[in-house]
Amino acid sequence: MKSFRKELWFNIPTRRAFINITPQIEDCLRESGVKEGLCLVNAMHITASVFINDDESGLHQDYEVWLEKLAPHEPVFQYKHNRTGEDNGDAHLKRQVMGREVVVAITNGRMDLGPWEQVFYGEFDGQRKKRVLVKIIGE
Amino acid sequence: MKSFRKELWFNIPTRRAFINITPQIEDCLRESGVKEGLCLVNAMHITASVFINDDESGLHQDYEVWLEKLAPHEPVFQYKHNRTGEDNGDAHLKRQVMGREVVVAITNGRMDLGPWEQVFYGEFDGQRKKRVLVKIIGE
Amino acid sequence: MKSFRKELWFNIPTRRAFINITPQIEDCLRESGVKEGLCLVNAMHITASVFINDDESGLHQDYEVWLEKLAPHEPVFQYKHNRTGEDNGDAHLKRQVMGREVVVAITNGRMDLGPWEQVFYGEFDGQRKKRVLVKIIGE
Repeated sequence: MKSFRKELWFNIPTRRAFINITPQIEDCLRESGVKEGLCLVNAMHITASVFINDDESGLHQDYEVWLEKLAPHEPVFQYKHNRTGEDNGDAHLKRQVMGREVVVAITNGRMDLGPWEQVFYGEFDGQRKKRVLVKIIGE
Repeated sequence: MKSFRKELWFNIPTRRAFINITPQIEDCLRESGVKEGLCLVNAMHITASVFINDDESGLHQDYEVWLEKLAPHEPVFQYKHNRTGEDNGDAHLKRQVMGREVVVAITNGRMDLGPWEQVFYGEFDGQRKKRVLVKIIGE
Repeated sequence: MKSFRKELWFNIPTRRAFINITPQIEDCLRESGVKEGLCLVNAMHITASVFINDDESGLHQDYEVWLEKLAPHEPVFQYKHNRTGEDNGDAHLKRQVMGREVVVAITNGRMDLGPWEQVFYGEFDGQRKKRVLVKIIGE
């Protein structure tokens, strides 16, 4: 069994953003040499997300509006978590809706994705350095 | 390490539905010959879901009502994604709540599920052919 | 390939709670002897969750308030599922938001977690015995 590990680093200039990281994961996969196996991609931070959906800017605006309705950033005092001095209570909630991680099948050395599936980093509390972990196991 | 891959195809006649796919995954597991490992089951389409919950029709109606409240289909113009000519903006949101994939342990050649756990395909934009990927790795 | 399986048992005295199970999973990992691989941790019950977030009590109160707003327990008759004699319809919905499972990378014999990542058991219909499955594969 082969295993491979890499961290992808981000420093998003805005509070929230969706970044297509599919090319970086394909690079990891090539570097790993794994032909059959599983690829785990997870946010290492608890106010960020890794998820799979469509690379369509209108949809990403819909996610932004929808998540802000489900878990508004303001007023910040509505979240007990923010009494710790943080203002990111909403980000911990938004990330639960979008998910921490994806597991992608590896087949013939490629990510085994459907026609429109793309992997995204979802940032909900940016303006600082954060990481995504790519872990690949297989043969 | 063994690996196994199969696509399950669906063509749901309605816009939304929940289909119990546990028997098909058990068939895959038998065919794979894997006794110890992990089984990934994921929607290959971004307006569909694979999730684990109870096979109880009242609950499925509750999911339908609840998801429609969290992310209503109508009015379709409320979603920027629908400016692309689609009317499935809501389906991309509903799928994030229900999730893209499940990972199930394989123990002694069986899916290692709790007493009420069943695997479902969740369709949120049906009336066309769509796929689920089953990927099994182990020994 | 090594594989390891263990059930963690819970009997939560309240209806809802969040329990940090990171130390128990670290124990499983040591017992497994796996140095490189993947660790699946999933609720075996469909009204409970395993998720990763922050071990901060204010945040856990925020989750409690937020989930109760998204899927209120009362009135219990609002859920068709409760016509079966249950009163846990809301718990099946809350669990979908928080998720059934996490997959954690194993690197150098340790859970490969970010600085604040902790693994939690989320109970939404307690006061009875329930289980979490830990399945580890690797080498």
